Amino acid sequence: MRVATRANGTPDGELVLVSSDGKRCISAGDAAPNLLSAMDNWDEFATALQGHCNRLAAGEGEELDAAALRSPLPRSWQWLDGSAFHNHGELMQIAFHLPPIATDRPLMYQGQSDRFYGPGDDIPFVSEADGIDFEGEFGVIVDAVPMGVSPAEAERHIRLIVQINDWSLRAIAPIEMKTGFGWVQAKPPCSAAPFAATPDELGEGWRDGRVCLDLLVEWNGQRFGQVNGGEMAFSFPELIAHAARTRDLVAGTIIGSGTVSNRDYAVRGSACISERRAIEIIAGGAPATPFMAFGDRVRMVGRADDGTEPFGAIAQRVVKA
Amino acid sequence: MRVATRANGTPDGELVLVSSDGKRCISAGDAAPNLLSAMDNWDEFATALQGHCNRLAAGEGEELDAAALRSPLPRSWQWLDGSAFHNHGELMQIAFHLPPIATDRPLMYQGQSDRFYGPGDDIPFVSEADGIDFEGEFGVIVDAVPMGVSPAEAERHIRLIVQINDWSLRAIAPIEMKTGFGWVQAKPPCSAAPFAATPDELGEGWRDGRVCLDLLVEWNGQRFGQVNGGEMAFSFPELIAHAARTRDLVAGTIIGSGTVSNRDYAVRGSACISERRAIEIIAGGAPATPFMAFGDRVRMVGRADDGTEPFGAIAQRVVKA
Repeated sequence: MRVATRANGTPDGELVLVSSDGKRCISAGDAAPNLLSAMDNWDEFATALQGHCNRLAAGEGEELDAAALRSPLPRSWQWLDGSAFHNHGELMQIAFHLPPIATDRPLMYQGQSDRFYGPGDDIPFVSEADGIDFEGEFGVIVDAVPMGVSPAEAERHIRLIVQINDWSLRAIAPIEMKTGFGWVQAKPPCSAAPFAATPDELGEGWRDGRVCLDLLVEWNGQRFGQVNGGEMAFSFPELIAHAARTRDLVAGTIIGSGTVSNRDYAVRGSACISERRAIEIIAGGAPATPFMAFGDRVRMVGRADDGTEPFGAIAQRVVKA
Repeated sequence: MRVATRANGTPDGELVLVSSDGKRCISAGDAAPNLLSAMDNWDEFATALQGHCNRLAAGEGEELDAAALRSPLPRSWQWLDGSAFHNHGELMQIAFHLPPIATDRPLMYQGQSDRFYGPGDDIPFVSEADGIDFEGEFGVIVDAVPMGVSPAEAERHIRLIVQINDWSLRAIAPIEMKTGFGWVQAKPPCSAAPFAATPDELGEGWRDGRVCLDLLVEWNGQRFGQVNGGEMAFSFPELIAHAARTRDLVAGTIIGSGTVSNRDYAVRGSACISERRAIEIIAGGAPATPFMAFGDRVRMVGRADDGTEPFGAIAQRVVKA
């Protein structure tokens, strides 16, 4: 099953089911007013929607207006973002002469969840001097997870998979990181791709609790990276168990992978500018690539081996606030 | 005006107006289903409720059932907690041989906002070995704040003042702090005192954007601290402007002061065990006070010079999850 959220004038939007080609949809109607509500009783919701799924599979439904789509969850109660690709952390440490982060635990911060920009929104920033950067990543949406859940138990709480751009301000990030308090100013709202997909929709692309798809990143129409989500050092179930060690996770919590990064970065490229700059520093002593300027565009799309794009694309422009 | 939230079987509870003696209340009724909704249009809400305020002042209203009260906001979209009392940070640095945090900016982290425990709730924790600690502090609830707001403009967005216990797990906190990502496991849900008060309710107790009231903290019936909120190095408007530097703040955002701490700690005591332990380490080389055990109780109440207690009391017991 794939779902999306259509603008309808309410804060949470209208939940629609989306056909496998991403071109048709059927409103969830009475089954759930919006996706955040649906997360509270996912099994009931999915059962109630089976008829709609069958109708979509039979070619029924209305034409999907891509311009009307928002983030699958335009807001949620909680966003916990990991940093599960060790390659990314290692590159940053080497380039910036940082001490290794002395932990064998997953890295995770709590970010802003009251707003997720839609896939085609213009994104307002105060200043180019803040070092505007994208971070392409995958994430999962869970139903209610009890405190103390094991990784094995956590997997069944993963109801939907999403694709995220975790906007980051690189001039502020290291300042906030040094305080130990984590990021506030350096992490404005994220964006999300239009479709959220159940794990079974990904087929072999969902393996070992990881999204083993390529993420294609283009900056101003130029290829920037084609990274694969399979190299997470910790799986999503492990990230969930980490997050739930001392708290219940409310239904609708989104858990992120952190920026996708591959050891074979010379071929694959990167999913954020900061990592490319780190690679440039390691190679030549100085960064060559600037951060984003107002008017710049970024496009990100997850793609399976068979060419399908289960989440649709994020395609956005950076503008002056 | 003082408001509270009464349990009614819904996630956000029922909003009630509370008399100045805290003994009577009138339901907000049609004016707002709950406090989170009221924050969206605070001026309209406050105007609509003027009649109720007058009735309460005239001695009308029903008896308030303290046992039915939840946190004023049982959940919100965002909780950003400062650490604005420099005395606390300095004691921790001296005791634990930490380098000073090299910043002239406010310290702030984003914490869990999907659940705030009510003032009388038992609080479940997984393990005493996590170092269970309370942190007594004050906070403000804002309406919608635009990105880039100045401190001067920020003050008028402060609609309500609250009193909070920011539960903390001290065995985990330094581990997470060292990663630079901030706290996730170390900061389970907070608790809040029953009443939220408009700034004018505090009279002279609200000065320079600070809550200049004493906070009385008792642990298992013994006085632990009587600290005053006036020593914040950054005012609440300054904390709001810091938080809104790169993001709009959604209506209902709660901004915390961080644990209240005074330079005259020898007389005043502390509002968290961790600070008392730091003082013991500085004085004698080792901490003497353990963290909380299952069954322990903590009570916190803000008190004005005239003896009034505008937020009511948090009185809770720590239990095994």
